[in-house]
Amino acid sequence: MAGQTNRLKSYTHTTLGKDLTAAGIVVVLLIPQSLAYAMLAGLPPEVGLYASVLPLIAYAILGSSRTLSVGPVAVVSLMTASALGEVAAQGSANYVTAAATLALLSGLFLLLLGLLRLGFIGNFLSHTVISGFISASGLLIIVSQSKHLLGINAHGDTLPELGQSLLAGLPASNLITALIGGAMIGFLLWSRRSLIKVLQHTGLSAGMAQLLVKAAPMLGVFLSILLVWSMRLDQTGVGIVGHVPAGLPDFRLQLPDWSLLQALAWPAIMISIIGYVESLSVGRTLAARRRQKVDANKELIGLGAANISAGLSSAFPVTGGFSRSIVNFDAGAETQMASVFAACGIALAAAFLTPVFYYLPEAVLGATIIVAVASLIDFTVLRQTWQFSRTDFLALFLTLLLTLLFGVEVGVASGLLASIGLHLYRTSEPHIAEVGLVEGTEHFRNLLRFDVHTQPGLLSLRIDESLYFANISYIEDHIMSGIQKRPDIKHVVLMCSAVNDIDFSALEALEQLNHTLHLLGVSLHLSEVKGPVMDKLARTGFLEHLHGQVYLTQYHAYQSLSKTS
Amino acid sequence: MAGQTNRLKSYTHTTLGKDLTAAGIVVVLLIPQSLAYAMLAGLPPEVGLYASVLPLIAYAILGSSRTLSVGPVAVVSLMTASALGEVAAQGSANYVTAAATLALLSGLFLLLLGLLRLGFIGNFLSHTVISGFISASGLLIIVSQSKHLLGINAHGDTLPELGQSLLAGLPASNLITALIGGAMIGFLLWSRRSLIKVLQHTGLSAGMAQLLVKAAPMLGVFLSILLVWSMRLDQTGVGIVGHVPAGLPDFRLQLPDWSLLQALAWPAIMISIIGYVESLSVGRTLAARRRQKVDANKELIGLGAANISAGLSSAFPVTGGFSRSIVNFDAGAETQMASVFAACGIALAAAFLTPVFYYLPEAVLGATIIVAVASLIDFTVLRQTWQFSRTDFLALFLTLLLTLLFGVEVGVASGLLASIGLHLYRTSEPHIAEVGLVEGTEHFRNLLRFDVHTQPGLLSLRIDESLYFANISYIEDHIMSGIQKRPDIKHVVLMCSAVNDIDFSALEALEQLNHTLHLLGVSLHLSEVKGPVMDKLARTGFLEHLHGQVYLTQYHAYQSLSKTS
Repeated sequence: MAGQTNRLKSYTHTTLGKDLTAAGIVVVLLIPQSLAYAMLAGLPPEVGLYASVLPLIAYAILGSSRTLSVGPVAVVSLMTASALGEVAAQGSANYVTAAATLALLSGLFLLLLGLLRLGFIGNFLSHTVISGFISASGLLIIVSQSKHLLGINAHGDTLPELGQSLLAGLPASNLITALIGGAMIGFLLWSRRSLIKVLQHTGLSAGMAQLLVKAAPMLGVFLSILLVWSMRLDQTGVGIVGHVPAGLPDFRLQLPDWSLLQALAWPAIMISIIGYVESLSVGRTLAARRRQKVDANKELIGLGAANISAGLSSAFPVTGGFSRSIVNFDAGAETQMASVFAACGIALAAAFLTPVFYYLPEAVLGATIIVAVASLIDFTVLRQTWQFSRTDFLALFLTLLLTLLFGVEVGVASGLLASIGLHLYRTSEPHIAEVGLVEGTEHFRNLLRFDVHTQPGLLSLRIDESLYFANISYIEDHIMSGIQKRPDIKHVVLMCSAVNDIDFSALEALEQLNHTLHLLGVSLHLSEVKGPVMDKLARTGFLEHLHGQVYLTQYHAYQSLSKTS
Repeated sequence: MAGQTNRLKSYTHTTLGKDLTAAGIVVVLLIPQSLAYAMLAGLPPEVGLYASVLPLIAYAILGSSRTLSVGPVAVVSLMTASALGEVAAQGSANYVTAAATLALLSGLFLLLLGLLRLGFIGNFLSHTVISGFISASGLLIIVSQSKHLLGINAHGDTLPELGQSLLAGLPASNLITALIGGAMIGFLLWSRRSLIKVLQHTGLSAGMAQLLVKAAPMLGVFLSILLVWSMRLDQTGVGIVGHVPAGLPDFRLQLPDWSLLQALAWPAIMISIIGYVESLSVGRTLAARRRQKVDANKELIGLGAANISAGLSSAFPVTGGFSRSIVNFDAGAETQMASVFAACGIALAAAFLTPVFYYLPEAVLGATIIVAVASLIDFTVLRQTWQFSRTDFLALFLTLLLTLLFGVEVGVASGLLASIGLHLYRTSEPHIAEVGLVEGTEHFRNLLRFDVHTQPGLLSLRIDESLYFANISYIEDHIMSGIQKRPDIKHVVLMCSAVNDIDFSALEALEQLNHTLHLLGVSLHLSEVKGPVMDKLARTGFLEHLHGQVYLTQYHAYQSLSKTS
C-alpha cells in the first residue's frame, strides 16, 4: 500500500470529487445516527455529533482501511450506557465526564495493543460467539429504546430488568408519542423496501436510488420536527430533544480521579475488544472487495487514536461501524479524505444546525435506532450451528443467553471463555483411529471404516491432532487401554501424519510412555513424523531414548515390524 | 477392572499379608510426614494425623487407583497456609476451623466436578507449567521452613517477604536448634545415599533395604526426642512440638459463616485443581506399571470424598502424594485395603502415641520437610524447554517467577492462563506452505524446501492446522495477500490433509472467502479433505455455494485445473 505522502501526491480531481460526494451522503446519514446513539448511550445529543468529528480525522490519519467510517455505533453505545450506569447518574455532568474518560481509557488500551503488535488477540473471540453477542445486544437495544416510542421511563441493563421496568411504565405511555414513533418505523421500513423502486421509476440509477434511500432517516427527522413544531405536540407530553448547545467540543485534558479510572478499566477493555473485532471485520470485508489489505496492528493504532481524540473532545467510545462504512464505500469514497470531509460536515452541523433539533421527538430517534439495530439480530445462526456442531451451538447459545440475562459485560466475558473452553475441549479428546493396510496398496486406513490387513502383536494408531498438554493424557489413556485389552501387543506405532506440532508437556508424556511400555515389553514407534515436529524431537534426547524406531512411512513400519514380531 | 464386591470375594490371605506389610511401612513414613505437613500448613501437629485417617478410608472406598495414598502433601499444605493466612491468625481456633472449612469446600468442588464428569479439565493445566509451579512452591517451602531450622520467627507467602523476614530474624537464631536441624538434614541425606548400601551389606535384599530407608525419618524423630528429653534442650531455647492432645478427631458439621466461605472459595478451587492434577498424575504413573487404568472422574469423586471427610474430622486439604504412594506401591500393596490398614495405624498413633512427641524439636520436622521437598525442585527443565521451544519456556518461566514473587495462587492462575494463551497463540498462526508437484510422482511438497512444478494461475496452499476461530483470519489474510501479489491467479486450492477439524466461525469465513474470491474472478477449491471435516461441510450449504470443486487428492486438482487455466 502506498505511503501517506504518495497518496496525497496522487490525489487527483476525480478522486476529490468522489470523496466529496461520498462525504455529503455520509453526513446526511450520520447526523440522525449520531444523535440517536448518543441517546442510546444516555448522553446529550451534541455528544453524538462530537464523536463524529475528531475521531474520524484521527482514524483517517492513522488507520489502515481507506473507507472505514469511525464513530458511535449501536453495540458500543449500549456497552457505554451499561458501564456509565455503574459510576454516575444519567443527565449529570459526571456522566458526561465519565463517558469521555471511558473513551480515553479505551483509546489508550487499543493504542498499547497496537504498539505491542498484539493485533492477533482479536482472533481469540470466535465469530460465532460474536454473532450471538451482537444479536443479544440488538435485542437489548430494541427493548430499551421502546421506552422512547412509548414515552415512558424505563431502565436496566438486562432483559428481565428492562422488561419489568417497561411493563411497570406501560400505563403511563403517551399515545401521540407512540403514533409518531410507529409512523417513523413504518416510514423507515417502507423506504428500505419500496422507496428505492419509486426513485428508480423517476429515472435514477439503481445505485443512486440505493444511496438516496440512506437519506430517509434525515427526511423523517425533518418531517417530525415540522410536525411537532407546527402542532406544538411537545405540550401534549411528546418527549423532545430540547436545547442542544451549538458549537464545537472543548478540548480538555483534566486528570480523572483514580477511583473512576479503576471502575471504568474493565468496561473499557471489553468495549475496546468488541469495538476492535467489529471494526476489523468491517474493514476486512471492504478491503477484500478491492484486493486491498487491512493491517490489524495499524487498525488498533487508528482506533486507539480515534478513541483518545474522542476522550479529549468530550465525546464517547467510537469504532468502525458497518452501516456508515458501507454507505461511504458504496457512495464511491476512494481515500481517507472522504472521512475528513464528512467530519467537517458534522462539525458545521454541530456549530450551526443544533437549534433545528429542538423539536425533534425522542421517539423518532428511538425508531431510527430500532430499525438500524433490527438488522443485527440473526437467530437463524442458532439453527445453522445446531446442525453444524453441538459445541459451536453451545458457545453461541450461552453467549446469547448470558448477555440477555446478565448484560453485555458478562456476555462478552462468558463468550470469550466459552469459545476458548470449547475449542480446548474439542481438541482435548482427538480422533484416534486404529489403522490397517489396504490390500494391494501402501495406504493405511481406519479399520472401522475400511477392510484392511493388520498384524498380530502390532497396534497402529493414527492420531488426528497436534500433541499438546490438553490432549496428551487422553492419548496416553487410549494407548494404555489398547495395551491392556490385548496383552499380545509387542509394538505400538503412532502414525503422526496429522500431528502438526508438539509441546514440551506432550514430549515428556511420550518419554514416559516410551519408558512404561518398555517395562511392559512393548516398543513404541513413530511413523510419518512431519518436518517441524521431527526438528523439535531432534533437539531433545527423545530420539535416543526411544526404544522403537521412527519410520518415514507407516508402510515401512508395517513391513519392518511384521518381520520381527 | 473388577467391581467392589468381586474384589472383596477374591481377597486372599496372600493379598491380606501384602497389604498389611505395606500398611506397616506406610504408617512409619506417614507419622513424621503428617506432623511436618501440619506444621507447614500452620496447624497443630494432631491435625496432620487426623488428615491421614478418614481421608485414606474415604478414598479407598470411592477412588479408582488401588495403590494411591491420600493425605497431607507439601504443595497443598503450602497453599493451605497461604489461604488461611488471609482469614485467621495462626494458632487461633478460627485458623483450625478455617482449615476444615477449606477442605470441605475443596471436597465439595471436586465431588461436583466428578459427578458432572468434568475430569478432563485436569488436562488444561500443562505439565510444563505444573512443573514450574511445583519447583517454585518447593523453593518457597524450603525458605519458609528454614525458620524452624534457625529457631526464629518469619512469615510471608512470597520469596521477597520470606527472605526479608528471615534476614530480619537472623540475629535471634538459636545455635543448638540449627545444629539439630542440620544434623537431621545430614542424616536424612546420608540415609538416602548410603544407608541402603549398609543395609544390603547385612544381607537384606535391595528392595527391602530401600523400604527400610523410608523409616529413617521416623528413626531421626525418635533419636531427636531422646536427645532433647535427656538433655532438657527445650530449656535452652530449642523449639519443641509440646503437648499434642491424644484422641481421635471429633466429627463436626457446624455451618461456617458465609463470609468465610466466600473468602475461601477461590483458594479452595485452586487447591482442588492442583491437588487433583498432582494426584491423577501419580495415580496414572502407578496404574500404568501394572497395566491398570485410572478413571479421571472416579478419581475426582474419590478425592472429593477424602476432602469432605477431612473437613468433617477437623483436618485440612489432602490429596494423593507421590512419595507416600510410591512407598505403598513398592512395599507391595495390592488393594485399597492397605490404605485402610494404614489409616487404622495412624488412628492408633493419634489415640495413644502423641505424648511421645512432646519433646520432638520443630527443627527436625522442618528438616524432614526440606529434604522431602528438595526432590521436587527441578530447574533443569528450564534449560530443556529453552532448547525445545520458546513458548514452552516462556509459560514455564512465567509460572515459576510469578509463583515466587506473588505466591501460589497467582502462580497457579497465571500458569493456567499462560499455558492456554500460548497454545492459542501457537495455533493462531499456523504453518501454511505453498506446494508444488514433485516431478515424476503424485506427491506435493513445500516449494521452499523442494524442487517442484507449479502452474501459472494456480495457487496451491497446504494448511498445517485445524481451521478454527483463532486462526481463520490469519489464513484468510495469507490467502488474500497471495492473491494481491499475483493478479494472474485464477484458482486457489487449499490442501486440507492436515486439517483435522473445522468450527462454525471458520466455515463462515470460508464461505465469505469463497464469495470474495469469486467477485475477484478467482475460484476456491479444496483437496484431500478428511472424512470428519467433509461430514461437517456436507451438513451445511457450503458445498453447494463453493464456486470451485472439492478434489479427492491434490494431484487430481492439479491435473484438472491445469486443463482449464
